[in-house]
This record gives sequence, C-alpha cells and structure tokens, in this order.
Amino acid sequence: MARVNSNYLKLVSRYLFSEVAKRTKEFVEKNPKAPVIKLGIGDTTQPLPPSIIKAFHEAVDEMAKKETYKGYGPEQGYDFLREAIAKNDFGSRGVQIDPNEIFISDGSKCDTGNILDIFGQNKIAINDPSYPVYVDTNVMIGNTGPAMKNGQYEGLVYLPCKPETDWAPSVPKEHVDLIYLVSPNNPTGTAIPQKLLEQWVKYARDNKAIIFFDAAYERYIREPDIPHSIYEIKGAKDVAIEFRSFSKTAGFTGVRCAFTVIPKDLKGYDEKGTAVALNDLWNRRHTTKFNGVSYPVQKAAAACYTPQGAKEIDGVIAYYLDNAKIIREGLKKAGFTCYGGVNSPYIWVKTPGKLTSWEFFDMMLGKLDIVGTPGSGFGPSGEGYFRFTAFNSLEKTKEAVDRIVKFNWKSI
Amino acid sequence: MARVNSNYLKLVSRYLFSEVAKRTKEFVEKNPKAPVIKLGIGDTTQPLPPSIIKAFHEAVDEMAKKETYKGYGPEQGYDFLREAIAKNDFGSRGVQIDPNEIFISDGSKCDTGNILDIFGQNKIAINDPSYPVYVDTNVMIGNTGPAMKNGQYEGLVYLPCKPETDWAPSVPKEHVDLIYLVSPNNPTGTAIPQKLLEQWVKYARDNKAIIFFDAAYERYIREPDIPHSIYEIKGAKDVAIEFRSFSKTAGFTGVRCAFTVIPKDLKGYDEKGTAVALNDLWNRRHTTKFNGVSYPVQKAAAACYTPQGAKEIDGVIAYYLDNAKIIREGLKKAGFTCYGGVNSPYIWVKTPGKLTSWEFFDMMLGKLDIVGTPGSGFGPSGEGYFRFTAFNSLEKTKEAVDRIVKFNWKSI
Repeated sequence: MARVNSNYLKLVSRYLFSEVAKRTKEFVEKNPKAPVIKLGIGDTTQPLPPSIIKAFHEAVDEMAKKETYKGYGPEQGYDFLREAIAKNDFGSRGVQIDPNEIFISDGSKCDTGNILDIFGQNKIAINDPSYPVYVDTNVMIGNTGPAMKNGQYEGLVYLPCKPETDWAPSVPKEHVDLIYLVSPNNPTGTAIPQKLLEQWVKYARDNKAIIFFDAAYERYIREPDIPHSIYEIKGAKDVAIEFRSFSKTAGFTGVRCAFTVIPKDLKGYDEKGTAVALNDLWNRRHTTKFNGVSYPVQKAAAACYTPQGAKEIDGVIAYYLDNAKIIREGLKKAGFTCYGGVNSPYIWVKTPGKLTSWEFFDMMLGKLDIVGTPGSGFGPSGEGYFRFTAFNSLEKTKEAVDRIVKFNWKSI
Repeated sequence: MARVNSNYLKLVSRYLFSEVAKRTKEFVEKNPKAPVIKLGIGDTTQPLPPSIIKAFHEAVDEMAKKETYKGYGPEQGYDFLREAIAKNDFGSRGVQIDPNEIFISDGSKCDTGNILDIFGQNKIAINDPSYPVYVDTNVMIGNTGPAMKNGQYEGLVYLPCKPETDWAPSVPKEHVDLIYLVSPNNPTGTAIPQKLLEQWVKYARDNKAIIFFDAAYERYIREPDIPHSIYEIKGAKDVAIEFRSFSKTAGFTGVRCAFTVIPKDLKGYDEKGTAVALNDLWNRRHTTKFNGVSYPVQKAAAACYTPQGAKEIDGVIAYYLDNAKIIREGLKKAGFTCYGGVNSPYIWVKTPGKLTSWEFFDMMLGKLDIVGTPGSGFGPSGEGYFRFTAFNSLEKTKEAVDRIVKFNWKSI
C-alpha cells in the first residue's frame, strides 16, 4: 500500500488569492460595467526590454545550428551568467562572491522551498505576515505540527512584525536555527536597515543559526541605508544563504530565472555536531534533482548585466516605483497610514477605522471598483492592513488613486 | 545549531561519468593526435528543427510587447500545451488523459526526484542496472539505510535485470509499494513489452502499489508490441504515474521541458489507510514549490505537435536510430552480443571474454580511440556490460563502428 506524505494533509488551504478572485468575479458579474482596477496583482506587466529580447533571440538561433546547439548545460548554470552576477550584483557593492557560490535556478519560489531538503530537524523562525510559501513548504516537509485555530502551525516560531519597527522582525530572545528574512519584504513593502541586519547576523553567529535572506526585490531599493545583499554585513558569509530572482527585477516572472548564493564557508552540522559545507550539499541536490535553466533564458538573463540592458531594466523598475509613489502619496493625502512603496512595489496600508482586512476589501471593491489584497491573508499580524501593488499601468494606477483621494472617507 | 539532512551524507559518490571524463582526458593528454570518438555521451547533438525555432522566436517576440507580454503562467503549464499533449501523445493511441492530469515541468530528472516528496515511508523497488537518479533521490529523502559494499543501499528492493528477459525487470515475489519502471530503458536500451507491462499493472493493483513509469525515450519505440504509455494497459490509470520529456524526443536537453501524468483516479493512502488523490497532492506541491515553465519554452514544445513540427522531430529521431542501427549491426558483425538500439538510442553490449566493464573501457579507448560507458557504473548487474550511445554524428558513428569491425578481437 503506497503511503502518502501525511504532512501535506496538515496544510490549511489559504483562500487568499482564490477568495480575492472569487469575490472580484462575483462583483463583475453583478456590475458588468464597473470600471474595475486591479491593484492586487503581484506580477510584472511591462514587456522585456530590447536588449534582453535581442539576447534571447540570438540564443534561440544558436539552438538552430549544429555548430552552436547546446544540449545539457552545467546544472549550476553557465559560467557567463554566474560570473556576470558575481561581478555586477556583488562585486560592484564590495562583496566578494565566487561564481561557484552561485547556483542558477528557474525560480526563487522553487529554491526557497527546495532549500529545506538539505536541512534536518531545526527550530524555524518565520515573519508574520509573510509570503505563504515559507510556511507551507515547512509544513510539507514535516517541520511543523498541525495547524492552529489562527491558521499558524505548531512548532514554528513566528516573528510578529509591527508598525513600530516598520514591519521588520526583531531578533528573538529564544534560540532558533533557521530564520527567514525578506528585504524588501512582501507584503509589507518595507526593507531591513543595515543596523537591524547587523543584529540578525550577530544573532545567527551566536546561535550557529542560518539566515535564508530573500532579496527578490533588491533592485527596488532606493534608500542608502538598506543593504542590497546580506553579505554587505560583515560575517554574513558564515551564516546566510541569499535568494535572488530576475522575476521582479527584470520582468522574468514568465521567463523563469533566479539564483541562490551559498558561500563556501557556510556550514551546517550533522547529528554528531560535525560541520558540513552547505555549498556541497546544495550542489549535490542541484545536480541530482535539477538539470539547469534553459540556455536561451540564461543568455537573456545575462543581457541584464550589459550596460544597455541594465539601463533598460532600471527604466522598468523606475516605472513601477513611480506607480508606487503615486499610490503612497495619494493614500497619505487621503489620510491613510502607509508603509513601504519606497524601496518596493508594495504599499501596505492600515485599514480605516476598525475595518478588518476583508471588510476593507469589500468596501474598496464595492464603492471604488478597486481590487487589493487583504493583509490578514499573509498571517494574523496582517489583520487590519491591506496591500496595494504598483504593477498596473501608470494610467490605471493614477485613476485608482484619484478615486481614493476623491472619496469621502468620513462617510464610512 | 542548524542541522543538515544527514541522509545526504549516506550518498556514495558515483565516479562513473567523472571517471570516464578523467580517463579520457588523461588518454588525450598522452595521445594528443589520437582520433578519439565519443559514443558515451547521453545528450542530444542535433539542432532544434525549424518549426520549433520559429515558435520559440514568436513567443520571445510576444514577451517584447505590452499587449502580448506574459507574466506568471499557470504553474501546471499552459492549456495549449497540456491539451496538445493529451490529444497527440495519448488520445492518438486510444488513451484518454485529461489535460488536468498533465503537469508541465522543466525536466523529468526534477520530476522523478521531486515526486518522492508526496510519498511517505514505502518499500521501493528499483531496477539494477538503472539511471542513478532514482536511487540517489531515495537516499537523499531518507528512504534507505546506509550504502552496502556493492554500492547499493540497505532498505531498497533491487530488481536485478538479466539478459534472459532482455533486461526487463520481472515482477517480484515480495510486496513493494513503489516501483520504478523505465521503457525504453537507460542504460540497457531495451523496452518492456505489452505482456510484461500487463503483469506489472496487475501486481501493482494487487498490492495497492504505484508504478513510476519513466517513458523519456518513448518516441524511439519502433516495434509494435511495445506500449508507448503505461496507460495503454487496462487498469493502469489506478496505479501509475508517467514521466515524459521533450529532452531526448525533441532535442530539449538544453531547453528544458517535460511533463508528468498523474491520473485523477490514482490514490495513495494516509496513516489511517484513507485514500488520498495523488493528483491533488502533486498539484499542491507543484503550485507551492514550482512556478511553471518558461512561456517561450512551452510554445516551442507545443510546436512539436504541429504536423510539420512532428515531422521534423521524427527526422531527428530517425537520424539517431540510424546511428543506433549502425552500431548494433556493426557490433554483431564483430561477434558481440548486443541488446537495445532498436527502440532506443542506447546499445548495451556484453564485454568480450571475461573483461570487466572498466577493463573493456580501457581497451576500447587504448586500442580503438573510442569512448563508451562502463555498465557496472549503473549497478552491480551491469558488470561485464558496456553502453554505446547513438548521439554522435553519422560520420563519427560510422568511423567508430568501422574500427570495431576491423579490429582483431581474437587478439585480446
């Protein structure tokens, strides 16, 4: 009798995005002429810029000729891409990362889930609110107990994030082994400043803990005191794995390319307490359970590091950040308390009065024809908050903000 | 203290391909003018045909325009591809597979490894010799004990394959829960005939077991009594997961696209013995730990199902199979006992006299400047055998076979 992994049966369905879709659909069916604007979407909408398209085409053409055809590539990624990353994403900020410490993959969602494969039983700390995949992948691999009434799982250490710290998690008093840090964060749109990140690196060093640093939105950072890489913090190479992605930084959500950095000095411990190099373990996983990223996709990703490609990519990021600014400033003008949106395409908003996240959702949709995402869907600490995203067009974003500004908020 | 997954430390390094590379390199350094021909490579070498290239380019162009740009796609794959697969790979052979039973992925290597995530503790049967990834992924996830002296692992049920059954595994007397079947097989190049596959399906039904059917080389099948899909066997939809890939069938080893079929009727069992739909569990894994295959890659894959694309792909397969025929017939002419090479790009050869696999490797390289792969590297039952592949060019293949035929084999 084939036994299933019963941990999967512990998973509580998260109705967040499907519930958003369902309520939106019902609304549109009842109000077919309503000019609905979606500011809930967490997906890029601007096309790939010319330099990236050109490199993509050229690589496809290489696959058409016997002389330049590429079969299996190195599972870890081609050197041309690993070297470009090491130089441009790290070297340029004074961080020395060897190309062998970089593993190219088809997505950070995959990597942040799969990374748990190389770890054993550990005490794991996760932000609340947070990107749901961190929690769910821990449930699936058996790192948690059953779900509790509030939707959280027994066995995980949740780090409640609060407005007082701009939604950055504080170092806990208790001991944990693995820590998820995200900067700039989704859903709150806020980033972890240098000083706090230094505290986290110190904590990890003191506790022989490892930080999973998800920097998928790194390219949106504008403020000078926000580290772009955790390796900008002294000592971090002994305690941190960094996840990066081309998805939100270069519009690759549908193209699929990301990478994970595992420094050679980073160690975990076996049952006897012997140090084991995590780069070796991940290399073993990556070569055994993965076969490399599509060659034309890697060529397209490498074009992001050419001077012209980088300039074009920066233009797209600036477009989204302009939208974010319009949302943030409009909401503030309308009297809302806002977070994020400066170093990130996400704006995190306190719901007015005593409205819950879902009540605010219904109100926004019903009265203003605007779709956003209820903060409570990202964890209990997100209750009473709401996420707007900057990925719609400039025109639609302006129109939505205009509706918000003109609305009589005293009427609710 | 962050604990690692100690199962990784059980892994015995397989020196097979690195040892082949090392010995070849040493030989070439000593004999720089030797006209070495590699018949060991398991990777496609012919370029992508025009229809596939055209579709690939068109999809890249879609990503360049706002109106046609694609962000995140469905994690399970686009309907256009799932529907084309259901119709052409299954419907055309009288097998009814719903598009929702098909999950597009970036590789069968990934899928055959990751599929274990949704299973619990089971008794697992694996061919000997076999593709190393099946065993290694079971070690990594903790389904085995430590390695034994012969390189096999405690806790797995190995199914020794023998020349008497053309290297197809026989149904065991003992009970197992999960079974890896591969047809056509790598490294032996042989396929599982209809009648034997019927026995396996019956065994799985009787034992509530599940068959992992790896059909990565399906398109090479030429003989009429070889099923292309396990679902051609009545009752298989209740007991089998099928893995398919565009890698070897359409030259996508560097492009990355594959798919896995999990019928809606297929069930595993939880700790209480309650049936659980595996399609649901895999869907949960696929949507949580994967983000879909690159859109242009899916469009390129879909072009394989157009009449012109299919014709072009068949031309490439025919090219490789012609090479296989040349190798097989040449070896037979030279007095070798051969298997495979009819429904597969692999030819599996008995080493002459009492030569071990590695002794034959050294002899072939030293005397004939030909590189192949020692059978013992795929498991103990492969000792005394050798694998040739049909992926080199027609010219090189002919030249290599010519050398083999002309060699005085009585001299060794």
